[in-house]
Amino acid sequence: MLSQIDLSKSLPRDQYKWEKKELSLRLAALQRQLIVDGIPVVIVLEGWDGVGKGSLINSLIYNLDARSYRVIGKDLTGVEDFLILRKYWKNMPSPGNITLFDRSWNSKAIDEFILGEKADLHKLNRHLKSVKEFEKQIIDSGVCLIKVFFHMDSLSIEARFEEWLAEKERKHYVSKLDLKRHEHYDAYFSLYDRIIKQDYVSGNQWHLIPALDFNYAVIQFGEVLEKRLQVAINLKRNKPILSKSLSGKQNSFSGQTSLLSEMDLNHSLSKEDYKLALKERQRNLLLLEAKIRELGIPVVLLFEGWDAAGKGGAIKRLIKKLDPRGYQVIPVAAPNAVENLYHYLWRFWIKMPHEGQIKIFDRSWYGRLMVERVEGFCSDLEWQRAFREINQLESYLVNSGVHVLKFWIQIDKEEQLRRFEARKMDPEKQWKITDEDWRNRDKWDDYEIAVNDMLSLCNQTQASWNLIEGNCKYYARVKVLDEILKHFEKLLNV
Amino acid sequence: MLSQIDLSKSLPRDQYKWEKKELSLRLAALQRQLIVDGIPVVIVLEGWDGVGKGSLINSLIYNLDARSYRVIGKDLTGVEDFLILRKYWKNMPSPGNITLFDRSWNSKAIDEFILGEKADLHKLNRHLKSVKEFEKQIIDSGVCLIKVFFHMDSLSIEARFEEWLAEKERKHYVSKLDLKRHEHYDAYFSLYDRIIKQDYVSGNQWHLIPALDFNYAVIQFGEVLEKRLQVAINLKRNKPILSKSLSGKQNSFSGQTSLLSEMDLNHSLSKEDYKLALKERQRNLLLLEAKIRELGIPVVLLFEGWDAAGKGGAIKRLIKKLDPRGYQVIPVAAPNAVENLYHYLWRFWIKMPHEGQIKIFDRSWYGRLMVERVEGFCSDLEWQRAFREINQLESYLVNSGVHVLKFWIQIDKEEQLRRFEARKMDPEKQWKITDEDWRNRDKWDDYEIAVNDMLSLCNQTQASWNLIEGNCKYYARVKVLDEILKHFEKLLNV
Repeated sequence: MLSQIDLSKSLPRDQYKWEKKELSLRLAALQRQLIVDGIPVVIVLEGWDGVGKGSLINSLIYNLDARSYRVIGKDLTGVEDFLILRKYWKNMPSPGNITLFDRSWNSKAIDEFILGEKADLHKLNRHLKSVKEFEKQIIDSGVCLIKVFFHMDSLSIEARFEEWLAEKERKHYVSKLDLKRHEHYDAYFSLYDRIIKQDYVSGNQWHLIPALDFNYAVIQFGEVLEKRLQVAINLKRNKPILSKSLSGKQNSFSGQTSLLSEMDLNHSLSKEDYKLALKERQRNLLLLEAKIRELGIPVVLLFEGWDAAGKGGAIKRLIKKLDPRGYQVIPVAAPNAVENLYHYLWRFWIKMPHEGQIKIFDRSWYGRLMVERVEGFCSDLEWQRAFREINQLESYLVNSGVHVLKFWIQIDKEEQLRRFEARKMDPEKQWKITDEDWRNRDKWDDYEIAVNDMLSLCNQTQASWNLIEGNCKYYARVKVLDEILKHFEKLLNV
Repeated sequence: MLSQIDLSKSLPRDQYKWEKKELSLRLAALQRQLIVDGIPVVIVLEGWDGVGKGSLINSLIYNLDARSYRVIGKDLTGVEDFLILRKYWKNMPSPGNITLFDRSWNSKAIDEFILGEKADLHKLNRHLKSVKEFEKQIIDSGVCLIKVFFHMDSLSIEARFEEWLAEKERKHYVSKLDLKRHEHYDAYFSLYDRIIKQDYVSGNQWHLIPALDFNYAVIQFGEVLEKRLQVAINLKRNKPILSKSLSGKQNSFSGQTSLLSEMDLNHSLSKEDYKLALKERQRNLLLLEAKIRELGIPVVLLFEGWDAAGKGGAIKRLIKKLDPRGYQVIPVAAPNAVENLYHYLWRFWIKMPHEGQIKIFDRSWYGRLMVERVEGFCSDLEWQRAFREINQLESYLVNSGVHVLKFWIQIDKEEQLRRFEARKMDPEKQWKITDEDWRNRDKWDDYEIAVNDMLSLCNQTQASWNLIEGNCKYYARVKVLDEILKHFEKLLNV
């Protein structure tokens, strides 16, 4: 498709000036509509070094309200993030805002493939797949995504580089990396071409713009934006309001309804055995933590379970002997006002671990598939989509080197009642039980359907559920620690 | 003071176990009260390497609710931030939460002074002064600040290091930096001692805890926390509710009331001269931006002014030719629900520039001294304190290498009316004018008093106000650019 672009197109200066003025006023008016309608917009700019993306952006944003757009270029700190997509999640626009990304979420992986020591096609393809999933996720959540590719031929780029390098004031435009990339123009060309074709087929097209004539490119770029923003606004205005989840409670989605009921909750452990077992494992966990830190491994430990199942208690024993500087507990409740402005996964993305960190999620993104589904806080379409989205998230984490361990702590309905009653009696634990806990309990059957769905459909081999029999707290706590130690044992030789 | 600590204190194991159990239950109960009362708590742990701060923290937090405290250790990424205090601002607890900082905001500066190539006493003292101001700011805003120093003598530390280094499982406890610091024990001792004494005098004391006997240290630490948290809760419960600002509007605080009225607003520029002048300056600004990026200079450009004074228009001309990847415009409106949980400066701290970044604030922290004061959104005490706090903030930025340029764009009341009316007529500008603008206009005289105060009291030489005569937009826009270019000209030789 790249080779079909007519690079001879150009625009005389007078026509350009007039058209640009009109266009940028129309874009400014559209921007105000975006704000009113609360549409988040992501614009991705890709193309050859030397096409002058900075100037192209500039010539169009002049009439936009600078308070509602952001341009994200490459990170000046030079720190490489092992989670490539984190940067893009972090900078997602809230409703009414525009984020322009200079270079796409593909570019780092492409550079690595072409310029790196070893061309790992498998890794590249995996990244491209994740990117496709990511794009679908944000589009599904209501983001207007506009991808633009500015094209030039190899000889013209070379000529432009030479021109710039000869001028004192422009010399700094051309970096060593730019020149190095240009040496591999053909390799980049065929890879971009492949990506552009594949994205075209999957309906998520790139807008290809000939950038040899600057004036022509500006107007083309502006017209693409205008057309796409107009479509986004029309779509939003005519969008049927999704009814909130109703079927969410009653119907099994997976057909799998007996996972929980098949668990044998009779496992138990005496207090003495428990104390002994705990002590030994906690010592081993401390060594494990040091190793994780030393090797720079990012870890996610995720806990879900019924109210009063013992999530907090298990976490407490897990961290008891750990160095508190090595882990962080992330309590998850209903999203706050700011979090609610974004994709439901956004608030988790910004809390993912860095190298050597252990993040312990006390509840998690599975809220989408439990409380939000059962209580109708999202539409049927939204929670049904979430099975796939969550699997994609977890795959991405694991493929990027994060160790993801998920725990479901199971108790039966009678045990929950016993614990609720006991909490009511204990002055030191009364604060732990609220009216909401009792209300949730009334919906036990609905939740059981939802949990069975989530345990069976979000259970990929690389991030499978550890089911913990929780009627005996002692047994449950020790089993959690055992699973964690077992997971790392072979790997790290702890 | 350090030399007066009795290091011989110890606690037998049985007594320790019993006391610790009681203590940690009481601390857990206090934590729940903190949540109810919405008190943010900052605990700073300082002391010699080898005292085992990790274990000390651990032994006490066991019964705390892990969802409401965080431990912040040293940054694993190893990136040094030129704004040392940014990390602490970023991790401020919201109401009801506890942040434990392992090592204090002094430690980096102290290491640099003792271990660095050149012992810069002036720099150290300046940092210690900033820290004192910072502590006062957070305490004034309602944070309960608890500072703890764990003490041991040099020989005992040495013995402990040797013991650890001999054990395979504990070898990694002792880092090279620990050993290096220990070589300079005496220098650290006298410096810490000086800081502890000074802080004692200024009423912001360190709790000194002998840490030779681990058991004794744990109980002491716990008792300090208990006592301090109890005091914080009592204070909060008995705190008089501050009446909102009433005198804020009518009375001049500085006695300086004529700064604005003395400005000569007759300056003007013809359209032709304007166009020519703009073009030249915008070209120079582009070169300046490249230089700023290249040299890694952090820049804050701050714009304040009446409604319709032309802040947006000036920013628009400023960024017109800039590379959009080099700057960011930060629009400032009323704080959102999350921002409202923190100190009023918090939301600005987290947006400060990094090296090579230009942050353009469209309105700023001066909201405290204008709209919040005049409308009574804060108490008299709060806005009166803000003159000092804002001066401290700006000094800190400048001393850390940030270039801070502040602009007040002035128009008179008649000119504002003309612009409001013109906006009402222009279909493309109608959105810019709201009922609030008209309401603010009614309070012109109150605002004039507030602005005169802020311009005269927050006008330190290193971050002084540029007063821009704004009745003629052309003149104002060119003058803004001139001031920016002039500021950097000599410095960067652009």
